[in-house]
Amino acid sequence: MTTDIVIETTRGNAVESRHRVRGLVCDASGTAVLAFGDIDRPVFPRSAIKVFQAIPLIETGAADALGLDAGDLSLACASHSGEPGHVARAASLLAKVGLGEAHLECGCHWPFDQPVALALARAGEEPGQLHNNCSGKHAGFLCTAVHEREDPAGYVGADHAVQRRVRDVLADLTETRPGKDQPAGIDGCSIPTYAAPLRGFAKGFARLAAGQGVDGARAAAGRRLMAACMAEPWYMAGTRRACVSLMEAAPGRVFAKTGAEGVFCGAVPELGLGFALKVDDGATRASEAAVAAVLARLFRTGDAALADRYDAMSHTTLRNWQGTKVGEVRAVDA
Amino acid sequence: MTTDIVIETTRGNAVESRHRVRGLVCDASGTAVLAFGDIDRPVFPRSAIKVFQAIPLIETGAADALGLDAGDLSLACASHSGEPGHVARAASLLAKVGLGEAHLECGCHWPFDQPVALALARAGEEPGQLHNNCSGKHAGFLCTAVHEREDPAGYVGADHAVQRRVRDVLADLTETRPGKDQPAGIDGCSIPTYAAPLRGFAKGFARLAAGQGVDGARAAAGRRLMAACMAEPWYMAGTRRACVSLMEAAPGRVFAKTGAEGVFCGAVPELGLGFALKVDDGATRASEAAVAAVLARLFRTGDAALADRYDAMSHTTLRNWQGTKVGEVRAVDA
Repeated sequence: MTTDIVIETTRGNAVESRHRVRGLVCDASGTAVLAFGDIDRPVFPRSAIKVFQAIPLIETGAADALGLDAGDLSLACASHSGEPGHVARAASLLAKVGLGEAHLECGCHWPFDQPVALALARAGEEPGQLHNNCSGKHAGFLCTAVHEREDPAGYVGADHAVQRRVRDVLADLTETRPGKDQPAGIDGCSIPTYAAPLRGFAKGFARLAAGQGVDGARAAAGRRLMAACMAEPWYMAGTRRACVSLMEAAPGRVFAKTGAEGVFCGAVPELGLGFALKVDDGATRASEAAVAAVLARLFRTGDAALADRYDAMSHTTLRNWQGTKVGEVRAVDA
Repeated sequence: MTTDIVIETTRGNAVESRHRVRGLVCDASGTAVLAFGDIDRPVFPRSAIKVFQAIPLIETGAADALGLDAGDLSLACASHSGEPGHVARAASLLAKVGLGEAHLECGCHWPFDQPVALALARAGEEPGQLHNNCSGKHAGFLCTAVHEREDPAGYVGADHAVQRRVRDVLADLTETRPGKDQPAGIDGCSIPTYAAPLRGFAKGFARLAAGQGVDGARAAAGRRLMAACMAEPWYMAGTRRACVSLMEAAPGRVFAKTGAEGVFCGAVPELGLGFALKVDDGATRASEAAVAAVLARLFRTGDAALADRYDAMSHTTLRNWQGTKVGEVRAVDA
């Protein structure tokens, strides 16, 4: 239970770099089944809790009133790669409430996935706000605001009703007072981000997944969003993305969501567990290996074949520009 | 002297991620003036010692026979960004010995600098081997091989005369037996890379810079290469690159070269010092902040204005996609 997980990269016959990880897997009561590293230090969850942030889209009735399907809800919880299918669906979400790209306040960036960015450049295009990895979440915010007859302008501000609703959900699920007893900052997409100990996020996901210790409608909203992501994982991430591989390895059984700076959160509903982890140095290559290693541990006794699949995902071969194997990224017990 | 350097990234009012760094600054006798972290663990120097690897280009007489200028020599020590000027000069180096891109064995990759990669894609092009950040070093290898009347084919192999010469220089400058008493691996560009303790690299650069404890012709070769890089830093790196900023802050006075996985090496000739550092987790954002912090410390007593410039470089503002300041990367004493 207390075995640490370290992510190493190797080259030839030696370890070249090391990442330290802290993480917690717990049930709806907060009881840990796996804990490693300093789990008390506050962590900015970044995009790993987009499911929490999308709960008001369900709770306000906006999702039902607008007839949103699983792909729409998955996109509303997404850090997507800005592929044409993501961009089109984000635009269609906005169109449902009579809004467009200009109403987004997330900013523009080139898709993080290099082949996607290069394809966009090759087509002579520039990324717009719809390409922002958070455009689906922001479209969800705007759907909620319009449904609630609020002025959508300034919806990224901490005092806007949209962000107040998100903060209320966070306070409930993390059992903290966001921004009051914990650090606060601004996220990449301009909305507030509130830190909390890893237990707040892991326990919050466990409570939603198990439907225990939380309002029944809120748990149902959380489960509906996670089910949508598991059913349509591509909309939540994109081609070649770790979140997709992690969820497709166990269809409908594992929810896993990456966040910037080496965060990963998720839930394993059949075990009634939630998890949250953070790589100290913020490296995504390490958080992806670590979450696979955690899932391998969780399934080892109950589903060894699935544990083997996750174990394989916790080891990635490193090749150089000629395709020669030069080392690997691997999760090791420490 | 023993104060550790930690690189932190902040968000809002809190530290979000942390990088641990180990490093050594020493003179030609190996006496440390600055040491932090575990400096005994072997480190793969990667591209941070391209000056060492280019010494045979001088020592064989190839550079003089071919009339190489400072830009050529800087490119031969480069991890360049694959900008048109780098590609053209790498091609011209190869042409001097009647060879071309097809003789390179470094492989192809998209330029690491995103604007450069996007410009290439926008022009409908694909990267060739000349775009490889190591193509100048490889062109230098090929110039040496042809000058020595060796078959250039297979010049990346550990047993080829080109790599044997490089290994001999490394053995001399690092005072190790590369690949025998230290780990060995294959680098991104397919040549061997040999690990050594940081002292080997820092002391090696100090010996070259001071011309002490090393064969006079070898020291002169090393100083000529470093002088070329300091005179033409753009060829050694490229637009927006940290190596260029670090060297342009003190023209002709500081040599600094990045390597993959968070390595930085260099020399301060006027102080008779060499340095080498490695970020445990391999992050470049941290190695760039750390080397600036090290240089700030080295110049604090003798040139406070320059120390202030390096100190400023050890702090970088982080902005989100709307341009809002959200935090910073900063070097702190720990």
